[in-house]
Amino acid sequence: MTDAQLMSRLSLNQITTEQWNIQEAVEGCVRHQIPWISVWRHKIEEIGLKQSKRLIQDAGLNVSSVCRGGMFPAATVKERAARIDDNKRAIEEAAELGTDTLVLVCGPSSDKDLNTARLQVAEGIDQLVPFAKDYGVKLAIEPLHPMFAADRSVINTMEQATTIAEKYHPSEVGIVVDVYHVWWDPNLYQEIERAKGRILGFHVSDWKVPMADMFKGRAMMGEGVIEINRMRKAVEEAGYHGPIEVEIINQALWDRNGDDVLQKVRQSFAKHV
Amino acid sequence: MTDAQLMSRLSLNQITTEQWNIQEAVEGCVRHQIPWISVWRHKIEEIGLKQSKRLIQDAGLNVSSVCRGGMFPAATVKERAARIDDNKRAIEEAAELGTDTLVLVCGPSSDKDLNTARLQVAEGIDQLVPFAKDYGVKLAIEPLHPMFAADRSVINTMEQATTIAEKYHPSEVGIVVDVYHVWWDPNLYQEIERAKGRILGFHVSDWKVPMADMFKGRAMMGEGVIEINRMRKAVEEAGYHGPIEVEIINQALWDRNGDDVLQKVRQSFAKHV
Repeated sequence: MTDAQLMSRLSLNQITTEQWNIQEAVEGCVRHQIPWISVWRHKIEEIGLKQSKRLIQDAGLNVSSVCRGGMFPAATVKERAARIDDNKRAIEEAAELGTDTLVLVCGPSSDKDLNTARLQVAEGIDQLVPFAKDYGVKLAIEPLHPMFAADRSVINTMEQATTIAEKYHPSEVGIVVDVYHVWWDPNLYQEIERAKGRILGFHVSDWKVPMADMFKGRAMMGEGVIEINRMRKAVEEAGYHGPIEVEIINQALWDRNGDDVLQKVRQSFAKHV
Repeated sequence: MTDAQLMSRLSLNQITTEQWNIQEAVEGCVRHQIPWISVWRHKIEEIGLKQSKRLIQDAGLNVSSVCRGGMFPAATVKERAARIDDNKRAIEEAAELGTDTLVLVCGPSSDKDLNTARLQVAEGIDQLVPFAKDYGVKLAIEPLHPMFAADRSVINTMEQATTIAEKYHPSEVGIVVDVYHVWWDPNLYQEIERAKGRILGFHVSDWKVPMADMFKGRAMMGEGVIEINRMRKAVEEAGYHGPIEVEIINQALWDRNGDDVLQKVRQSFAKHV
């Protein structure tokens, strides 16, 4: 792949510039020649779906995904039904913004029983598939690092995610490979291969030692220990050639000028992805 | 199991009272009727092996394990050989203190190449087995949580640990199940079952949300989300009926009076393990 081809796949996951609203992020992407954006729902909410769509379309940007659906486990049937409703809204928003990918962060357990929570995730996805299909939206299960098993997601390995996805057609359910969440996995490359044809997204950042903050401690590509380039080639071997989202949740980046961040993102992406 | 039987298995992993030297820890165990202790090598070094042994024996305590060997991966042949030598010293210390269990924290990679580091772990263990056998000491591979993959151990799942252990007789190499490191594993109970006859230790603490500090943030049993009692029963089903080490690495506990800590340890152990 040429440098230009690689750069044509660069997507700004909006959480990387959490200090910006949608308009600022869109304008930033245009200034820094970033052709894709991944949009977060709390940002859509600030200005509404219509206005979000207009800004993105007028700028000529493509939307790589909407973040995020999921959060399936809950203590009561009623709560779980409410989560499904919310996921349906997310699917509508994804379709309206012109992306076929809704990222699922599947949610923590409501109690100590992980097995039940994991079943609730599978049930939630099962309920959503027909609705998502009607909208032409694929459900992209993102396994989260095991250190988030208690508070963010009970889906913590590619093995789990692909096992759920395999019950459906690849046009319905797949997985997201985020290097930060899966780099440590002893079965990493086997699982990427197993997910062939089902990879719906590839997210990059880095793991730096020492890790100051589990949640907001992600590093810029190249600053940590992850073999990002090797993983990128592996997901390509497994059939994924779509946008590559830079998703760096890091308080220090949020405190910086957004343009400086995007400049650094471009440089690091070109060099280390 | 009766309450008394359970309490007869309680072991103080010495890192829980890092504020104490060996003499203080031994006297604390006696005061609080804790029959076992797991000894750390940096504490042995403070007063020497002979004196450590005398203190422990005179108090009538049993040693559940020595912490720790391991740290196998390194950049050069020479460095790796030095690590093996250090492990041999650890084996001698374990034997001298009357325990048959050396806990292995296998170490991080010297570069980005996890696969090679993992092979170096397997090679290191292979070199140690005959030596350990001569001393009647078992090598107990402790998988560490994936969040420690970059800086403490490239062995991050029971699957990995048991796969290495299976190459040897159960009297030579086995695994340690530490609830803090493995509770999130989607294959937890299958892997405990698979390790049947090879479990050489069971360590307890808890995972509390929010996790203030990855390394020093372990919680007292009962304060977090881990199904400790269910896991204890599972390791018993898998044939482990030995001492249960309370290993809580927590700065707040280290800042407290050691006797208060041991009192709380006994209460929480009785109630939640």
